[in-house]
Amino acid sequence: MTNETTHNSALKEIRAIAFDVDGVLTDGGVWWGAAGEEWKRFSFLDIMGVSLARRAGLKLALISGEDSPLVERFAAKMHITHVFKGCRDKAAALREFSDSAQIALPAICFMGDDVNDLPAMKIAGFSAAPASAAREVRSFVGFHTQNPGGNGAVRELVEAILAAKGLQAADVFVRTAAP
Amino acid sequence: MTNETTHNSALKEIRAIAFDVDGVLTDGGVWWGAAGEEWKRFSFLDIMGVSLARRAGLKLALISGEDSPLVERFAAKMHITHVFKGCRDKAAALREFSDSAQIALPAICFMGDDVNDLPAMKIAGFSAAPASAAREVRSFVGFHTQNPGGNGAVRELVEAILAAKGLQAADVFVRTAAP
Amino acid sequence: MTNETTHNSALKEIRAIAFDVDGVLTDGGVWWGAAGEEWKRFSFLDIMGVSLARRAGLKLALISGEDSPLVERFAAKMHITHVFKGCRDKAAALREFSDSAQIALPAICFMGDDVNDLPAMKIAGFSAAPASAAREVRSFVGFHTQNPGGNGAVRELVEAILAAKGLQAADVFVRTAAP
Amino acid sequence: MTNETTHNSALKEIRAIAFDVDGVLTDGGVWWGAAGEEWKRFSFLDIMGVSLARRAGLKLALISGEDSPLVERFAAKMHITHVFKGCRDKAAALREFSDSAQIALPAICFMGDDVNDLPAMKIAGFSAAPASAAREVRSFVGFHTQNPGGNGAVRELVEAILAAKGLQAADVFVRTAAP
Repeated sequence: MTNETTHNSALKEIRAIAFDVDGVLTDGGVWWGAAGEEWKRFSFLDIMGVSLARRAGLKLALISGEDSPLVERFAAKMHITHVFKGCRDKAAALREFSDSAQIALPAICFMGDDVNDLPAMKIAGFSAAPASAAREVRSFVGFHTQNPGGNGAVRELVEAILAAKGLQAADVFVRTAAP
Repeated sequence: MTNETTHNSALKEIRAIAFDVDGVLTDGGVWWGAAGEEWKRFSFLDIMGVSLARRAGLKLALISGEDSPLVERFAAKMHITHVFKGCRDKAAALREFSDSAQIALPAICFMGDDVNDLPAMKIAGFSAAPASAAREVRSFVGFHTQNPGGNGAVRELVEAILAAKGLQAADVFVRTAAP
Repeated sequence: MTNETTHNSALKEIRAIAFDVDGVLTDGGVWWGAAGEEWKRFSFLDIMGVSLARRAGLKLALISGEDSPLVERFAAKMHITHVFKGCRDKAAALREFSDSAQIALPAICFMGDDVNDLPAMKIAGFSAAPASAAREVRSFVGFHTQNPGGNGAVRELVEAILAAKGLQAADVFVRTAAP
Repeated sequence: MTNETTHNSALKEIRAIAFDVDGVLTDGGVWWGAAGEEWKRFSFLDIMGVSLARRAGLKLALISGEDSPLVERFAAKMHITHVFKGCRDKAAALREFSDSAQIALPAICFMGDDVNDLPAMKIAGFSAAPASAAREVRSFVGFHTQNPGGNGAVRELVEAILAAKGLQAADVFVRTAAP
């Protein structure tokens, strides 16, 4: 029995996803230059995954422990309006997202990769983690992907949710792209 | 029966290749800096692959959904004149390439990696995808490479086409490098 | 008998860790730009690992053969005050760390990845290396991680030390984050 | 019979190594920014490998088809004085290196990764390629490494040469580091 079949009914009920950023939407790497520059790597597979989730009507949030301008830049590109940066208490942020998006916690999925994500995962209706997540997070979550963070983990989660709802990525893309 | 033997006769007829850029000529990654910078990673194995295709007389096009200056920079380095950026309708772009290059669609191969490439793949004579392509794309295409995007996928496709035409990369390189 | 069980009692006694930087806290890569720029890649899994070690009361040092400003930047982010850069004699640096931190060498773990780390490893009470370390270093050390440098090697070592002391990362994080 | 034992006697005779740069000393990747910037990734494992080769008395050259300032920067860091950039005819460059270093071609190893390296490989006494090299190059060379370019391929070749000469990397490092 795979991850997906086990959790099919739970995945079907998901109406919103809150994503940690580093290690989930990125590979967890941070490139530093000598003059204080900072770079992170996102991927188009996951960007399309986020886009497909939005096209399929899911509400989205970013909840990051880091206080980086890249969080807002990614949010702007993906039209995500629920953004929490420099977040010390991710469970509180998730509750705030639940309130403002008017979606109850049981219908929200939190995807994270490290121990500071566990409090939010414990109150979310469903939790997911990339293959590259910390050991304790991988053992806690309901769903861990085959792909690592920043390289398809988000896409894989989104496709599993879409599949549980009877949707195919290609159909979602074509249908919502029509005028 | 391998990919290559199955499609050998089809590969032999290919006279042009249209490449998606992100996830095909790159690893699908996008590095972002805090001040709005954007970087992408190409590889010399694939750069040589594109060069070999051109030396062997194939017509080439870039068809990208992103509106990035890196598409033009890559095109300039590789002497590719058929360039489509910020493309919402890749099938229309492929038809335009077919018209201007005067090569019928059945003789054109489209290589892409995500669901927005499927409409172009459906009208191209042959379609190919990197190992790292989205699931629905990998199941659709006639040929998927062992190598992922940005790390030899393009080179592998080009060598398969050359092999179907009875050509070896080293010979193509030496012969065309002569004055 | 695994690495961890073999060395459990030794890991339990560790009170300080000295880290080489390149290849340990990074993947050993160095990105160079045309104008003399230099970039290195750290990862949040390891950043959290260093943070957990500090929260658990371990003393920390960076001992790098390179003379790069990134060493100080990483030290500042992680509140590491024992920093040795451009270091030709890592054993001498380790002794200096032992003196100033007032922790005897047998209670110090040195984690490195190349032959210039061997002299420090030979005087440290315990030595560890990433999966990606040089062959001679991997055969010398008491503990080599499953994860490569810059991608969880440091985190894995820290979790092994915490586990030997009967601590879980998530507990250390929650307990020390409390006001 | 492994690569190493097969070629042990040939490796023992090597007195100089000429390296291609992209795909050998780097992972073959090139990061491009929107304003024309270009970055490449080297690794400290290989940097130490080049350093060990020099310390063991081997003469070194860089022979690159690209005309990049990074070739000179790497040469300067590693004290390599035989540098060929933007090289169209690598066999000619190798002959020039042989003449100026006064080492006959049979005692020179050429390490490359693509078809433009084959002419130089054919006149060198010994040829080597990273695991990531182009197919035709891997089948041609006498020695291909387990590690890919930019991630230990150069180090692996150097250690194989040192081993054939009865030297260990750690000893070479310690002995030559002494005043």
